[in-house]
Amino acid sequence: MSKVLGVDLGGTKTAVSVWTLSGRRLESRRFPTPPGPPEITLGKIAALGRDLLGGEKPVAVGVSGGGPLDPERGVIISIPNLRGWEEVPIAARLAEEFSAPVGIENDANACAIAEHRFGAGKGCRHLVFLTLSTGIGGGLILDGRIYRGHRFLAGEAGHQVIQPGGPPCGCGKRGCLEALASGTGIARRLAEAAGSAGAGNGDGERAALPRDARELVERARAGDPFSLGFLRETAGYLAQGIANLVFVLDPERIVLGTIAVAAGDLLLAPLREEVSRKLWPAYAGLEILPAALGEALGDTAAYAVAPTPP
Amino acid sequence: MSKVLGVDLGGTKTAVSVWTLSGRRLESRRFPTPPGPPEITLGKIAALGRDLLGGEKPVAVGVSGGGPLDPERGVIISIPNLRGWEEVPIAARLAEEFSAPVGIENDANACAIAEHRFGAGKGCRHLVFLTLSTGIGGGLILDGRIYRGHRFLAGEAGHQVIQPGGPPCGCGKRGCLEALASGTGIARRLAEAAGSAGAGNGDGERAALPRDARELVERARAGDPFSLGFLRETAGYLAQGIANLVFVLDPERIVLGTIAVAAGDLLLAPLREEVSRKLWPAYAGLEILPAALGEALGDTAAYAVAPTPP
Repeated sequence: MSKVLGVDLGGTKTAVSVWTLSGRRLESRRFPTPPGPPEITLGKIAALGRDLLGGEKPVAVGVSGGGPLDPERGVIISIPNLRGWEEVPIAARLAEEFSAPVGIENDANACAIAEHRFGAGKGCRHLVFLTLSTGIGGGLILDGRIYRGHRFLAGEAGHQVIQPGGPPCGCGKRGCLEALASGTGIARRLAEAAGSAGAGNGDGERAALPRDARELVERARAGDPFSLGFLRETAGYLAQGIANLVFVLDPERIVLGTIAVAAGDLLLAPLREEVSRKLWPAYAGLEILPAALGEALGDTAAYAVAPTPP
Repeated sequence: MSKVLGVDLGGTKTAVSVWTLSGRRLESRRFPTPPGPPEITLGKIAALGRDLLGGEKPVAVGVSGGGPLDPERGVIISIPNLRGWEEVPIAARLAEEFSAPVGIENDANACAIAEHRFGAGKGCRHLVFLTLSTGIGGGLILDGRIYRGHRFLAGEAGHQVIQPGGPPCGCGKRGCLEALASGTGIARRLAEAAGSAGAGNGDGERAALPRDARELVERARAGDPFSLGFLRETAGYLAQGIANLVFVLDPERIVLGTIAVAAGDLLLAPLREEVSRKLWPAYAGLEILPAALGEALGDTAAYAVAPTPP
């Protein structure tokens, strides 16, 4: 049976999965990405891949990489938080290892391709996918194809500034969408809120506030008014960034990852309302949907960028 | 000789030009666009076109329209400030009139195509063109082709919000890039500055300030410190909008129209500096250039969208 190998390579964990050519996932295994040199990780990927393939040669390999990379040369430029990952020719290495063609794509782009082919973006020609987890990354499907830009750095929609002079972002700027509405931004805003609540009302109040996006969503689901209000505020920031994207790209659909999937309409209902308030009536019909591939998104992203026969 | 007819149809003036197939402009004439029903304007275009063509049949007609339109159906949806221009099937009308194929495109897109083919965007694959006149419109050349979006409304980069809660924009929102850095936005900011100068220092000071972008650029060229500082402030606003665009689209080049052409490096030098301060080092090499087609841009835009043989 013809099989495809998928590699989802991130700064904290790596998953290797094996697929039928037609897109059924047969098995997936993951390991914490070793902090050491790339050789160790590449060795683990190769061993796990051979094991999963049971000695069979794959027809293709797809790599979704958690950082800037050059999909034309097949080189990973860097992976945040991982030392030694500089200019790693991963496509050539895996092509040699598995005697198969290898496609690589950064993870936000790969997720956009996966949601476009198999998930919430199916059937649409112009799609913006935004990861909404620790950071905010983006992948653009324009005229039906991934759009990468001149330096393969398109889609960094989390780094548009929506609050000039606002809170510092991990990227070194201030007021980026990511600094306000990503998992990191949400945790920072929650800590601030806890700080001022603590200052005003004693430690009892401070302990009552959620500490991160996961707790926030849990408590909002349980009806906690603070958490519901905080999600609405987060929707307001997201709406600013999304409205800007719509004016520039006029997509048919926006698909949002992780936090939006977890929060569902608690985030998406106020978000849709705020976005349509900010847009002109001519943009009516824009859809804002949660990603549909759930826990399989990372593996599917890797599968989706493998250069398989059409 | 094979000729191409170009029609640059705007809310205040319309130009009709005749071209050789290879792109030499033979003649161009303009008239104030009549405020009345489209029939009158279409009649004038037809008469002027026939006259310019000297009885010859053109091989193609290109229309650059100053408002939202549907290039696939060949229909003008509206032209701001012109009554009666609603769902006007201009392509069919001119195709019948001249027995030739007709291409239509909104003016910002048509200018982007013209600068890409013949001007400051030559040879580059990913280009953002921004008009910088009364308003700020945009045209996107992505992967070598015009990108129009789902409702043909892509490129409205002047309506990204760069100052939340900022000055009102003609579009009904607040703090749009257009509200701060277009001709209209510049005139409003100048009036404000004159108001506060007048309040503080008497009417003599008020009279000394430039009143619009044209006067601003003239005085800056003459070394006027206020005008130079005001242009730098304008460059700061533009830099915010352009940096956001670069994070999203990662273009190779940004080409800026009218006001940037008039101001040259008085605007572009501080703009380039501010933009590179806002971008990550990975975006190094981004070029920001003034449009190169000068007074011929409007006519060339019309010519460039005519469906001529390749």
